[in-house]
Amino acid sequence: MSSSGSHQESREADFILHPKWLVPMTEKGLVLSDHSLAIQGNKIVAIEPCESLKNTFKSVREINLENHLLIPGLINAHGHSPMTLFRGFADDLPLQPWLEEKIWPAESQWVSEEFVRDGAALAIAEMLRGGTTAFTDMYFFPEEIAKLAVDANIRTMLASPILDFPTVFAQDADDYIRKATELSDRYKNNNHVQVAFGPHAPYTVSDTPLQHISTLANELDIPIHIHVHENIQEVEDSVSKLGKRPLARLEELGLVSQLLQCVHATQLEDAEIALLAEAGVTVIHCPSSNANLSSGSCRTQDIVDAGINLCIGTDGAASNNELNMINEMRQAALQGKISASHAEATSAWEVLTMATVNGARALGQEESLGTLEIGKLADCVAVDLNHLNTQPVYDPVSTLVYSVQSQQVSHVWVDGKLNVENGELCSLDTAELIAKARSWANKIQ
Amino acid sequence: MSSSGSHQESREADFILHPKWLVPMTEKGLVLSDHSLAIQGNKIVAIEPCESLKNTFKSVREINLENHLLIPGLINAHGHSPMTLFRGFADDLPLQPWLEEKIWPAESQWVSEEFVRDGAALAIAEMLRGGTTAFTDMYFFPEEIAKLAVDANIRTMLASPILDFPTVFAQDADDYIRKATELSDRYKNNNHVQVAFGPHAPYTVSDTPLQHISTLANELDIPIHIHVHENIQEVEDSVSKLGKRPLARLEELGLVSQLLQCVHATQLEDAEIALLAEAGVTVIHCPSSNANLSSGSCRTQDIVDAGINLCIGTDGAASNNELNMINEMRQAALQGKISASHAEATSAWEVLTMATVNGARALGQEESLGTLEIGKLADCVAVDLNHLNTQPVYDPVSTLVYSVQSQQVSHVWVDGKLNVENGELCSLDTAELIAKARSWANKIQ
Repeated sequence: MSSSGSHQESREADFILHPKWLVPMTEKGLVLSDHSLAIQGNKIVAIEPCESLKNTFKSVREINLENHLLIPGLINAHGHSPMTLFRGFADDLPLQPWLEEKIWPAESQWVSEEFVRDGAALAIAEMLRGGTTAFTDMYFFPEEIAKLAVDANIRTMLASPILDFPTVFAQDADDYIRKATELSDRYKNNNHVQVAFGPHAPYTVSDTPLQHISTLANELDIPIHIHVHENIQEVEDSVSKLGKRPLARLEELGLVSQLLQCVHATQLEDAEIALLAEAGVTVIHCPSSNANLSSGSCRTQDIVDAGINLCIGTDGAASNNELNMINEMRQAALQGKISASHAEATSAWEVLTMATVNGARALGQEESLGTLEIGKLADCVAVDLNHLNTQPVYDPVSTLVYSVQSQQVSHVWVDGKLNVENGELCSLDTAELIAKARSWANKIQ
Repeated sequence: MSSSGSHQESREADFILHPKWLVPMTEKGLVLSDHSLAIQGNKIVAIEPCESLKNTFKSVREINLENHLLIPGLINAHGHSPMTLFRGFADDLPLQPWLEEKIWPAESQWVSEEFVRDGAALAIAEMLRGGTTAFTDMYFFPEEIAKLAVDANIRTMLASPILDFPTVFAQDADDYIRKATELSDRYKNNNHVQVAFGPHAPYTVSDTPLQHISTLANELDIPIHIHVHENIQEVEDSVSKLGKRPLARLEELGLVSQLLQCVHATQLEDAEIALLAEAGVTVIHCPSSNANLSSGSCRTQDIVDAGINLCIGTDGAASNNELNMINEMRQAALQGKISASHAEATSAWEVLTMATVNGARALGQEESLGTLEIGKLADCVAVDLNHLNTQPVYDPVSTLVYSVQSQQVSHVWVDGKLNVENGELCSLDTAELIAKARSWANKIQ
């Protein structure tokens, strides 16, 4: 006897998730209740009402997330992961003395491949634990970070650093540029790692290497990720030395294109916002760092209104002092209301868009990341709202941005694999990471 | 045989705490290592090097806090605890539509003694869990909050609300004032509860009741706690209607004295700062709420430099949306750097002073609270820094303010009794509090 021909066979799934609220970020305000999500391999294969999905899929693991919000993985669009070892090392100082008197001397004394590995490993663990599934990073020895990211199952875009002056990593601008292109070549088909050019800032890289970077970036079709217009002093110094603002100089040198990612950009005139919008530039807002170093306020709502792709970055832990994208969204929302002088500015939904959809676009991966949709890569985060500080819930996205602490992140999937389960990192050794951080701090302080 | 006459007898202690870092807040920058603290009854009876204290005291319980920072209990200088039931109910709106279109209509529909009890109970639990050991509160039915505070073992100063118009709590200004004086009388010898007058704001209380309040406050020697200069619109409306700014009006009415507590005060001219300093007024800064409602920026560093007692408040959860003094310190530090345009402003140590020493002064309890000193009341908080996001540690106070999440608070003592142990509330039922909050939200939304 054969089974009935009309019987539909179950499809396979590795995971079926049943969250209380599912926010796909495909549409502003859309919160799905009683919906489940199925993961097979590294992809999202279904998002359907619970009952229909239960009938269609046979799953290896079902995970009940009965008090949880499920969102796309958070994308940290700017940081310096190894600097986590300098967390709290030089607080309550402005940018220039912070850099020149504290950070650069400490870096020249301590940075090595081992420093980079231990600092980036701590940062990656903190980011995963807090729901970050992809991060853009600018630091020396980026290949060390690439290896860690692959091992830890987190996505990264490495903005390979470029400076005029020698460091332990490279001799001169050409040497830095060569290292960047070689790294890009080695990782060009990697599922977790992308490479970008990371000229540090207009004031640390001169015209010739900037033009060279522009040419190569266009050839290789990879982004240029640069700190620019971070504070008023940078702009004034450029005007007094060169007779032009840094962005005008970058434009003359041919860098202002859709490959450009401007980090900080606290000093933007209307015409500059129009220029960035017209050229399709990405702007990366680091609100905690901008406040911490008193760099200035980013005109977030004006930037969004101009149609610019605005993302959020934590910056390094030496100027933040945490790699916490949930706090950073809150900070972006609150600072945005202050700088716009109206409370509707930079709403909870807008900052979550910046941290997901816009972050994916900055990676050039808007087709595969940034939202929860069938066929996209399974990078998703569950947040437990069943805590005193997150009850009651009227709008789970508002609760996420304005009330959640990142330790409420309970589950994190990257590329379909579970990285955090019930608030614990699945494969990283927290105690060992902390012990290494302490051992560095004992030497450094 | 008798024991040797030279043998010194051990003293008794209920608790001996062995923290890694002990920050008494008696002196800026003072971090004690290898020191222990002994509690007997409701008092701190010793702070000594571990070894000497172990030899002197016999303790009922020794608590090893080997990765922890021990600080004085945090003092939340302004809030509306029952409004926790409106957390996230009306986000991304400016003050006037937030109040007039959302909060006041919802309050007139829902506020009752039961609402106050359930909302304040949730708030008290959240605050204790996050290291807050005393809070000033302004809301209807304050006696319900008083009873909860006594039961939950948390200190409170209840600013009994006063308005011109009727609510479910009182009929007219005289009725509100009578309720405030009666409450003050009933709680005048209570160890946990103090009472203040809580005129809502200059624009909701007219001259006659304000003068009456001033007279009574002087007679009873209790504070006047009022929202004032919260945003520019309040100031402009007053100027256009009355020809004077609200603070000028309060001064004319005799309210500007050391009994006055000005909440928000985002709009202060130099002369007003000088006036408040001269009169010994307390200012209470609510940075998250000020940003959330786009009310404006408080000139925190200027206020501190003028010698004014500046405290930190979370405000209610309808405009914050969390009662988290650790996040609020961070917010005060970051906003202070933006508003002062220099990064040394409102350092980590300064904001911790605001949240402890200055808060105690606002309660008129600087002799018994605000620092860890022998003879003071044992309100203290242990924070576990052994987390990925708080390593390494160079300065534990910087780590506390810029990196800690409040869920890292592990132990809280109020009046010598343990309220939170290993991150769990000792006597409050979290699940029941959450269930009640949900049930209210289901009705309200």
